[in-house]
Amino acid sequence: MIEEKLTSRGVNLETSIAPIGSYSPVIISGNLAFVSGQIAVENNKQSKDVKYKGKVGQDITIEDAKKAAELCVINCLIQLKGALRDLDKIKKIVKLSGFVNCDTSFTDHSAVVNGGSDFLVQIFGDAGKHARAAVGVSSLPKNSCIEIEMIVEV
Amino acid sequence: MIEEKLTSRGVNLETSIAPIGSYSPVIISGNLAFVSGQIAVENNKQSKDVKYKGKVGQDITIEDAKKAAELCVINCLIQLKGALRDLDKIKKIVKLSGFVNCDTSFTDHSAVVNGGSDFLVQIFGDAGKHARAAVGVSSLPKNSCIEIEMIVEV
Amino acid sequence: MIEEKLTSRGVNLETSIAPIGSYSPVIISGNLAFVSGQIAVENNKQSKDVKYKGKVGQDITIEDAKKAAELCVINCLIQLKGALRDLDKIKKIVKLSGFVNCDTSFTDHSAVVNGGSDFLVQIFGDAGKHARAAVGVSSLPKNSCIEIEMIVEV
Repeated sequence: MIEEKLTSRGVNLETSIAPIGSYSPVIISGNLAFVSGQIAVENNKQSKDVKYKGKVGQDITIEDAKKAAELCVINCLIQLKGALRDLDKIKKIVKLSGFVNCDTSFTDHSAVVNGGSDFLVQIFGDAGKHARAAVGVSSLPKNSCIEIEMIVEV
Repeated sequence: MIEEKLTSRGVNLETSIAPIGSYSPVIISGNLAFVSGQIAVENNKQSKDVKYKGKVGQDITIEDAKKAAELCVINCLIQLKGALRDLDKIKKIVKLSGFVNCDTSFTDHSAVVNGGSDFLVQIFGDAGKHARAAVGVSSLPKNSCIEIEMIVEV
Repeated sequence: MIEEKLTSRGVNLETSIAPIGSYSPVIISGNLAFVSGQIAVENNKQSKDVKYKGKVGQDITIEDAKKAAELCVINCLIQLKGALRDLDKIKKIVKLSGFVNCDTSFTDHSAVVNGGSDFLVQIFGDAGKHARAAVGVSSLPKNSCIEIEMIVEV
C-alpha cells in the first residue's frame, strides 16, 4: 500500500543507489533501521549525478532545495526497499536529520527540510510523523545542497 | 521529583513550544524517546523568540552561549513533559547532540555544550550522564546560536 | 579475538581518553551502546594532543585526514573497551557519523570518512559494516580535522 502510493508519485522502488563509500545503505538493530545519509542524486537515471547542487539561498532557491529534500527522503525509502524488501514492514518513521548546505547567514533550514518531512506524512500518514533536527553545514559530499538520514521502526 | 527540581529552578513545564516545521517534538520507539532539535527560544514568554542569536565567539559570548545550551536542554525537557506527561518516566539521558553556530576558527564547542550537560547532571544526577557529540555548524534555524537534540530512555 | 586484531595493529586498548566536557564516553541503553564523538587525539601518548588539526584540503591532506578518521574510530573502540571491558561483546557496528572540518568548497567527505569505515570492516568483518552519514562542518573542538561518533549493538 505504501509502495503503491510511492509508485503513483513516480518513484521507482526497483532502482538502487550505490553508497559512495565503504558503508551499508541500511543497518537494522532490534526494531530500528538506520538509513545512511542520502544526498540529492537522481535515482531514476543511469548517471546517478547530484541533481540539486550548491549552497541553498545562493546557488539554489529554497523551492528547489525543498524538492531536493523530498528526493533525499525518496532515496532513503529506496534504500529501505532494498533492505526490507517490503516497505509495509515500516511501522513508523522515528527520526530525520537534515543537513542543509548553505552560507553562514542562512536561517530558513526548516522550510527546506519540510520538503522531506511533508512527503513522509503524505505517504505514511500519522506513522510518518517523526522527530527531526535541521542544521546548516558548510559543505556536503559531491556538493549536494542537502543530506538526509533517517531512523525508522520496523 | 524531577519536575519539582525543575520548577524550583524556574522552569515552567506547562508551557509548550511549537515545532517550526512539519515534524513532532518527540517520537517514542521501544524504550527510546527521540527529542527533535531544540533552539534557544524563550519558553516562558508569549513571543517564542530566539533569545540567544548569532555566532558564538563573535556575536555572543561563551558565557551566554552556555546559558543558551541550558535553555535548549530545558526546551527538550518541556517537549518530553508534553509527550510523556510525567518526567519521572525518564530512566536516563542517553545521548545529546550539540550543534554550535560559530565561525570557522572556533574551537571551544565543549565549553558551550557543557551548559546543557551540566544542567542535566544537576537535575537527574547519575541518570543525567549522557553520551555526547559537539560540532560547529555554519548556520542554524532562526539564527539560534545553538541547537540541541536528545535521546532518552523511558 | 577482536582485541588481538587491534593489538596487532598497534592499538593500546588499556589507555583511556578523558571526555573534554561533562559527559560520558559511552552510554548503553538496551542493546545499543552510544559512543560520544571522538576527535583525532593521540591515545598512546601522555599529551592527549590533537594529532590532525585544521581544515581538510587546506591545512591537512585527504590522506592524513583518512588517518585521522581511523584514529577517531580507534578512540571510539578504546572508549567501548572501557565501558564493556571486552570488545567481543560488540555484535555489530550499527552507525557511524563523520563530521569533517573543511571549507565551504570541499566535496570529498566520503573519501575522508572511509578511513574510519574501512578500518571497522578490516577489524570486524561483516559485523563492521555500518550505516553512515558524512557531512562538512565549519569547526570542531580543539580544531580537530574530524570528529566521529558511533552506535554499536551489544
